[in-house]
Amino acid sequence: MPGSTFGRLFKLTTFGESHGPALGVVIDGVPPLLDLCEDDIQHDLDRRRPGQSSLTTPRNEADKVEILSGVFEGKTTGAPIALLVRNTNQHSKDYSTLKDLFRPGHADYTFLQKYGIRDYRGGGRSSGRETTARVAAGAVAKKILDLLSIRIIGYTKSVGSIESHTVDFSVIEQNPVRCADMEAAKKMADLIEQMKTEGDSVGGVVEAVIQGCPTGLGDPVFDKLDAMLSHGLMSIGTIKGIEFGLGFDATKLKGSQNNDSFITDGTQIHTRTNHAGGILGGISNGEEIVLRVAVKPASSISKSQETVTKDKESTQIEVHGRHDPCICPRVVPVVEAMIAIVLADCVLIQRAIKL
Amino acid sequence: MPGSTFGRLFKLTTFGESHGPALGVVIDGVPPLLDLCEDDIQHDLDRRRPGQSSLTTPRNEADKVEILSGVFEGKTTGAPIALLVRNTNQHSKDYSTLKDLFRPGHADYTFLQKYGIRDYRGGGRSSGRETTARVAAGAVAKKILDLLSIRIIGYTKSVGSIESHTVDFSVIEQNPVRCADMEAAKKMADLIEQMKTEGDSVGGVVEAVIQGCPTGLGDPVFDKLDAMLSHGLMSIGTIKGIEFGLGFDATKLKGSQNNDSFITDGTQIHTRTNHAGGILGGISNGEEIVLRVAVKPASSISKSQETVTKDKESTQIEVHGRHDPCICPRVVPVVEAMIAIVLADCVLIQRAIKL
Amino acid sequence: MPGSTFGRLFKLTTFGESHGPALGVVIDGVPPLLDLCEDDIQHDLDRRRPGQSSLTTPRNEADKVEILSGVFEGKTTGAPIALLVRNTNQHSKDYSTLKDLFRPGHADYTFLQKYGIRDYRGGGRSSGRETTARVAAGAVAKKILDLLSIRIIGYTKSVGSIESHTVDFSVIEQNPVRCADMEAAKKMADLIEQMKTEGDSVGGVVEAVIQGCPTGLGDPVFDKLDAMLSHGLMSIGTIKGIEFGLGFDATKLKGSQNNDSFITDGTQIHTRTNHAGGILGGISNGEEIVLRVAVKPASSISKSQETVTKDKESTQIEVHGRHDPCICPRVVPVVEAMIAIVLADCVLIQRAIKL
Amino acid sequence: MPGSTFGRLFKLTTFGESHGPALGVVIDGVPPLLDLCEDDIQHDLDRRRPGQSSLTTPRNEADKVEILSGVFEGKTTGAPIALLVRNTNQHSKDYSTLKDLFRPGHADYTFLQKYGIRDYRGGGRSSGRETTARVAAGAVAKKILDLLSIRIIGYTKSVGSIESHTVDFSVIEQNPVRCADMEAAKKMADLIEQMKTEGDSVGGVVEAVIQGCPTGLGDPVFDKLDAMLSHGLMSIGTIKGIEFGLGFDATKLKGSQNNDSFITDGTQIHTRTNHAGGILGGISNGEEIVLRVAVKPASSISKSQETVTKDKESTQIEVHGRHDPCICPRVVPVVEAMIAIVLADCVLIQRAIKL
Repeated sequence: MPGSTFGRLFKLTTFGESHGPALGVVIDGVPPLLDLCEDDIQHDLDRRRPGQSSLTTPRNEADKVEILSGVFEGKTTGAPIALLVRNTNQHSKDYSTLKDLFRPGHADYTFLQKYGIRDYRGGGRSSGRETTARVAAGAVAKKILDLLSIRIIGYTKSVGSIESHTVDFSVIEQNPVRCADMEAAKKMADLIEQMKTEGDSVGGVVEAVIQGCPTGLGDPVFDKLDAMLSHGLMSIGTIKGIEFGLGFDATKLKGSQNNDSFITDGTQIHTRTNHAGGILGGISNGEEIVLRVAVKPASSISKSQETVTKDKESTQIEVHGRHDPCICPRVVPVVEAMIAIVLADCVLIQRAIKL
Repeated sequence: MPGSTFGRLFKLTTFGESHGPALGVVIDGVPPLLDLCEDDIQHDLDRRRPGQSSLTTPRNEADKVEILSGVFEGKTTGAPIALLVRNTNQHSKDYSTLKDLFRPGHADYTFLQKYGIRDYRGGGRSSGRETTARVAAGAVAKKILDLLSIRIIGYTKSVGSIESHTVDFSVIEQNPVRCADMEAAKKMADLIEQMKTEGDSVGGVVEAVIQGCPTGLGDPVFDKLDAMLSHGLMSIGTIKGIEFGLGFDATKLKGSQNNDSFITDGTQIHTRTNHAGGILGGISNGEEIVLRVAVKPASSISKSQETVTKDKESTQIEVHGRHDPCICPRVVPVVEAMIAIVLADCVLIQRAIKL
Repeated sequence: MPGSTFGRLFKLTTFGESHGPALGVVIDGVPPLLDLCEDDIQHDLDRRRPGQSSLTTPRNEADKVEILSGVFEGKTTGAPIALLVRNTNQHSKDYSTLKDLFRPGHADYTFLQKYGIRDYRGGGRSSGRETTARVAAGAVAKKILDLLSIRIIGYTKSVGSIESHTVDFSVIEQNPVRCADMEAAKKMADLIEQMKTEGDSVGGVVEAVIQGCPTGLGDPVFDKLDAMLSHGLMSIGTIKGIEFGLGFDATKLKGSQNNDSFITDGTQIHTRTNHAGGILGGISNGEEIVLRVAVKPASSISKSQETVTKDKESTQIEVHGRHDPCICPRVVPVVEAMIAIVLADCVLIQRAIKL
Repeated sequence: MPGSTFGRLFKLTTFGESHGPALGVVIDGVPPLLDLCEDDIQHDLDRRRPGQSSLTTPRNEADKVEILSGVFEGKTTGAPIALLVRNTNQHSKDYSTLKDLFRPGHADYTFLQKYGIRDYRGGGRSSGRETTARVAAGAVAKKILDLLSIRIIGYTKSVGSIESHTVDFSVIEQNPVRCADMEAAKKMADLIEQMKTEGDSVGGVVEAVIQGCPTGLGDPVFDKLDAMLSHGLMSIGTIKGIEFGLGFDATKLKGSQNNDSFITDGTQIHTRTNHAGGILGGISNGEEIVLRVAVKPASSISKSQETVTKDKESTQIEVHGRHDPCICPRVVPVVEAMIAIVLADCVLIQRAIKL
């Protein structure tokens, strides 16, 4: 499966299946002399891990990370950093009844078609559990971004048809939906609980804001900053769309409405508006980078669904087990991690470019 | 500028600026023994070239392509294919007045910040003219897709607030908007003409459908088919968003509504609906692949705009010259080309994977 | 440290330091449905591991491998395969006296210059122990080569000035030098024992023969088969030179002497001689591939040597600890592994190329 | 043919066949603001071009280079630099008689086996003419090395059995053999003339010295400086071996003899000897980098040789046309170029790594 490596200078390679012995990541290209310890990584893993609240899957994984290499006496050495998370709470038997069925919305059918074999235990490599490794790598990437005071804030913007109306970063971690609007958060939580009761699921939109990004990140023409971010974010299994700045809404505007005027106080240059979402010609322009991703409703639902078997017979399926009725709350740290990974890569590249 | 190479096995490297001597592309990894001649490529270039209709820029470029390598006696040899298009109709002087100004919506400011130098003639490397090379490479990619009867159809779905309501592939090339709905096409054309008169521009949405795509394309976890397509398409300068299948609309649904049931006639497996847009877990599932991209209103408008100079003084700017009032009609072949490039790459990778 | 990933389709990423918690490798791009278990890998690790004979370092590492991912029910799944080997017999204290000194012939000085930090415990990342991961990956690569009946045989050709005069593959594993000439092997073993007694070391030449390699492997112009093999083999820390076929001896010949005539029996095409070592224009020609690498005398010797401290003071150093007096016997499986890795990669690439 | 791209940050992609319309290279990753004009490149091309002296092929190619992109007002912009050299003096008819024969020592047979098609005109892509593009790229790479005062000197060290005994860089360009020993140069020239008369060819050894290389270049573990140089140099068609420092001679020494002691004057650290050839653990140590490559005798000879046809019939072949009786003189600038390319890449990488 060529496809488990991402990045150019800050390069990560992930491995692991939902019900295998372990998940992990090797990160090559981390500059030396950065402070790094397991707690730094654990903090982000804890934000992603299952069982955080009643809104998420009850799979109880500690997701304890071990640093296997690349750190000496508390500092990175320039050598590749390998991070390992053991799987401890597998209930593989839950999946034995699904062995010969294709779960709708999942990759069961396509994996089998592609590889001629599939690890049916919890989706194997296609499980959302794979994102554990991304979050671990993201924590390392943030160490590079910290040097430049780049800050990434992700939050749930809508769940189903419930939109948030205000943005208050300080409340994001105070509600289990990770919404930046406390009032909307309550309604969202209610809806998610309802879905759980119904054995159903619901989708949503996650927004991310990047503050303090310097100008100059992103590499035309194919490795534009928005292209790289799109690659990274759209590779998260549950995401079906992405937009920057005004995004799809910009398509309804005139150029004279959409263009962001340049303004200056004689010292710094800014734009009066930020319809572009902080990226011009694929390069960061110093404004806040703003993007949104479309999170589909979780495919695992316990309601009965129509499907077929490996032997091409029609049947019904109910996907029991331990699932998230809405993926938004737990995908927020994954989105942040992927953004951090792309930015760290672009920062290193830019260091090499600029004489 | 590391960033001008795209693809893994079907790998292209583009070069050239809007007002330099030439644009071109080198494509490495093209299998041998494919029929290829300049006419094959010219056909697609003609669909992208300026001056096609009154709706597009009057810059009059023949965009004649020359094959410099990799083809012998009408067949590809396995060697890299270099394609060259000379620039012949530059009016570089048009840009001398813009030399010290940053055009809103353009990459003038960010290129200067990134590189400390910019080729101000028509945007240089950041010009949409760069996509000529993509279209040329796409024509070669299609030679590989033809072997599997994969067909890509792009068309303008909306312009400003004007939506198309029907999809008839046969009319796409019969109207200058490249819309699949003849009635909507007329309204769109009127709107675009109006923008031209106003010295303004308008955005739109381009949709693409991929027919005949076999199962198994795309490489988890980072090189999922939708992630690779997003990388390629979001690297087109004018595009600000992308979605697959139901895309952002899926976020409002329940899992039981969004999941595509599997069905079978005992011989083949299909899905009853295609909300996923033909991709499950990042791998093609054999259904039509459906995606949409958000095309922003062209940044070049002749209306007066607020901006700043290189020396950080506020001023006004009017971007005269030869511009497209709506980029949708000409971006359609570019979108198709990038899709072809990604698919060709995935096809070659899959040949290597499957024992 | 970008540089821990190798290969294009068969792509490995290694990690780990001599005295860290573990060494390992993630291999992406392994085709599905290959039989693979830990014993397959352990066999090669046992051939490389320390403490095999009185000629090698007495460091006593079991080098037990654990498969962390990519294998399900005894078969590869197409997902990345992560292999882990824990370090169990570190004597890190042995190195505390070397902490501020640069060992001659080692990478202590250059690592510190490059990274501004170094893990001084046994060379850290620059230790020969890093090759454990290569050998583990090579065992997986051989699974692909087995499908084509490609066989790689490495052996010690000379130690110091002692040359071997015959080549009998059957005796290689019957002597601790891994020499293909039993008589020479005895002399070599005596010399190595003598070096051990003296607290010194000695170099040698390792030759490798690849049998059953099909025509067509290797990718002009930069990824020629000999270029890729050279990259892989010269990246083994102890190797200072490589040659193919007649190698440096060919420089003394005329073209009429060196060229290998083509001959045929009407069915197959061969060459009368094999001065080229099985590669023409960077592509395998179906003959045996023959190469030799120059293995320097081990840098770790207990004899007193002149060196300097981190603080730029002259001093003497004696590198005690557990070292190999001659690296040849243990580098043989490493050489074979790197060859297997390169060939597996070329095999997968060739599957993609050929229509 | 995936394989025409080389380098990581300083990345080149070459194209072109011996008798096609043109050869060229696209170089991505060149930092902005370097002075660059066609004369800078032409100088090196003139050192490589055919017809320089009576010792080289009489093919009369001007090899005039055109810069197609990436340079604006005499400076690099950060955009990819495309360089084009038209073929003007093809005598393709010379090759029509060779169309169905495999020339011994050439890639005719292996290209056909690999691709199922071959451009038989002068070897097509496998021709030494391909190195024109490398030399052009090397001239750009040197612009980066100039910033650090890194200097590369290549010269012919031996031709056949004639060794040079002194090294005087100042005479290299004063004799057509590019030997650093004027006396040996005369004998070498005589031998080459004799080969020409005989319709035969002869090999030799080319040595290169890199002066002023800072410490810290090269990236463990797979992209060690010597591994990258070996990849680049062994990809030159005519080269069959490479060694660094003492190379194969080191295999006959004891560690106590081979290790380079560290010495210091209290300010700088050096090694007393330079047996390692300036590289320790794959990283430059600040000493001169010294390497040698084995150049095989040119495969094109007009003497009659035994070969077979495409239809597997035995026959005789005489390769007339315009060939070099010894490749050493013209390969010197190619060797220098490839070294420059690898070093420029390592310099850019190191800029990104070091905080």
